[in-house]
Amino acid sequence: MTLHGKLIQTLVSTAIIAVSSSLYAAEPIQPIVPAKEINLALAELGKKLYFDPRLSKSGFISCNSCHNLSMGGTDNLKTSIGHNWQQGPINAPTVLNSSMNVAQFWDGRAPDLKAQAGGPIANPGEMAFTHELAVSVLESIPGYVTEFKLVFGDDSIDIDKVTDAIAEFEKTLVTPNSPFDRWLLGAKGAITAEQLTGYELFKNSGCVACHNGPAMGGTSFQKMGVVEPYQAKSPAEGLIAVTGKDADRFKFKVPTLRNVEMTYPYFHDGEAETLSEAVDVMGRLQLNKKFNTQENGQIVAFLKTLTGDQPSFLLPVLPPSSDTTPQPRPFE
Amino acid sequence: MTLHGKLIQTLVSTAIIAVSSSLYAAEPIQPIVPAKEINLALAELGKKLYFDPRLSKSGFISCNSCHNLSMGGTDNLKTSIGHNWQQGPINAPTVLNSSMNVAQFWDGRAPDLKAQAGGPIANPGEMAFTHELAVSVLESIPGYVTEFKLVFGDDSIDIDKVTDAIAEFEKTLVTPNSPFDRWLLGAKGAITAEQLTGYELFKNSGCVACHNGPAMGGTSFQKMGVVEPYQAKSPAEGLIAVTGKDADRFKFKVPTLRNVEMTYPYFHDGEAETLSEAVDVMGRLQLNKKFNTQENGQIVAFLKTLTGDQPSFLLPVLPPSSDTTPQPRPFE
Repeated sequence: MTLHGKLIQTLVSTAIIAVSSSLYAAEPIQPIVPAKEINLALAELGKKLYFDPRLSKSGFISCNSCHNLSMGGTDNLKTSIGHNWQQGPINAPTVLNSSMNVAQFWDGRAPDLKAQAGGPIANPGEMAFTHELAVSVLESIPGYVTEFKLVFGDDSIDIDKVTDAIAEFEKTLVTPNSPFDRWLLGAKGAITAEQLTGYELFKNSGCVACHNGPAMGGTSFQKMGVVEPYQAKSPAEGLIAVTGKDADRFKFKVPTLRNVEMTYPYFHDGEAETLSEAVDVMGRLQLNKKFNTQENGQIVAFLKTLTGDQPSFLLPVLPPSSDTTPQPRPFE
Repeated sequence: MTLHGKLIQTLVSTAIIAVSSSLYAAEPIQPIVPAKEINLALAELGKKLYFDPRLSKSGFISCNSCHNLSMGGTDNLKTSIGHNWQQGPINAPTVLNSSMNVAQFWDGRAPDLKAQAGGPIANPGEMAFTHELAVSVLESIPGYVTEFKLVFGDDSIDIDKVTDAIAEFEKTLVTPNSPFDRWLLGAKGAITAEQLTGYELFKNSGCVACHNGPAMGGTSFQKMGVVEPYQAKSPAEGLIAVTGKDADRFKFKVPTLRNVEMTYPYFHDGEAETLSEAVDVMGRLQLNKKFNTQENGQIVAFLKTLTGDQPSFLLPVLPPSSDTTPQPRPFE
């Protein structure tokens, strides 16, 4: 290519970037950006730990059991199944794009991914283990001993390192390149006219007040049932459990709408089985809007444009236990 | 390269092949051969089904739950965990190299992989579903409807197609390239002197009478406790359940020893926690041999050369359910 040709190409590229940038700069939603500044060795270790059921008392439940990366980073159950088939109190939120959350869990009780990762391991209703026992299992597995040493440069394994690694892996679980993001980036044909109408409705009806930013949620706590009260079947009370303030009763972290077609059922109690139902309830309870069938369908059509590239990686192969590894105790 | 050079190269290659071939032709164990004649689209569909917990009543248990491909194709539990945390009656055999088994299950009650695949789905103690309900779930999922049509060329889904696909995927789950196979193929340095001594002991003590062929097992049913009776804690009685013959009581399919370092715990009841214990019990009960500590260690060292390349593939992304998909019923 001639110098002149290169110059023209540069000018054209700059113009395209400028157009797309101005296009979505005016929108309340921004594209999901691929993960950056990832410590690859740490994330690779974290991936193994994420899939390893030996972090549970039973040897049967891993992070991936309830935040299944084949299924939108959730279990698609109303509430999750824990140790000894215990029924969880709340719907498992997706791990996808969770690095963008202001805090973790529905009630925000963990400030970040690292703090969250330790929770289920030691929760008697979930993985039912202790941090000490989980670490002692890992210390007995030669493949982990060497990998922790490689990653951290010393000879010790502790829960801090374990949750560090899991959090680093979770940082990679972002889902760019959805049809809507391609539209935001300037590819006008990436979504249909109906989906675009749905987006306009979504914006103009007030949904974006809470579901905004790249993750379209995860950045604030809002009361479930603003206009009329939500008839909750679940005992979960949300943010009040963390702050102790009465005003925070039934305030939950606004969930991300990214990949929402895959993360059914909906709400903190999983009571809405379909997107259509969720849109209807949100409209009435939060916005005092009764969407008609056509409008509901348009918004649902828009929501289905939010499914991005799912995490793509080789199924990890876990290092085998050794003769000294403590046995799992599923039936005690 | 000159013609002369090529000729010499060909002669040398032929000589190497002849050497390695004659090397392992004399051995009672042959290398695992990579899968051939695989219908790729069928296997790809089968992979999704293998990982899909919607084939269970709870929506929580998939084939991969108990035959975990991150963990040697098993769950590494004494006996498995089924629907509602029921304790299974028997140790989950590995799915790896199971295409080489003469029949499936410890008692051989399924003639092949396809027949096996339907079993756990409908077993009330395992996935606790029915074939009809599993098919109706798949029929409600648009992504599966189109994929079945692509693979089978017609519009219907039935359990026959489901198990066909799962079996085709399972045919791909072979593990070539273990250190021992490389040794069999002529790479003398692939195993250590201790491991080779272990192999000689394994051969000369009679272990190969049952653990032979490429899978080193899976081709016959043998009584557990030949020389002295096995003190079973499990109620499983083996082949008699299939044949009704008294002589078949406590006859179990000889398990493959491929990847045995990863498929702990051992025996049909999972009572042997370590390879060392398994070797000791087998020697005493089946061969009237009491291996001393050194011999036991040598055989164990040999057994650890049997870990081949584990299945390597992208974690499948499952097509989402639709509004008409029957809900999972984990707590009913």
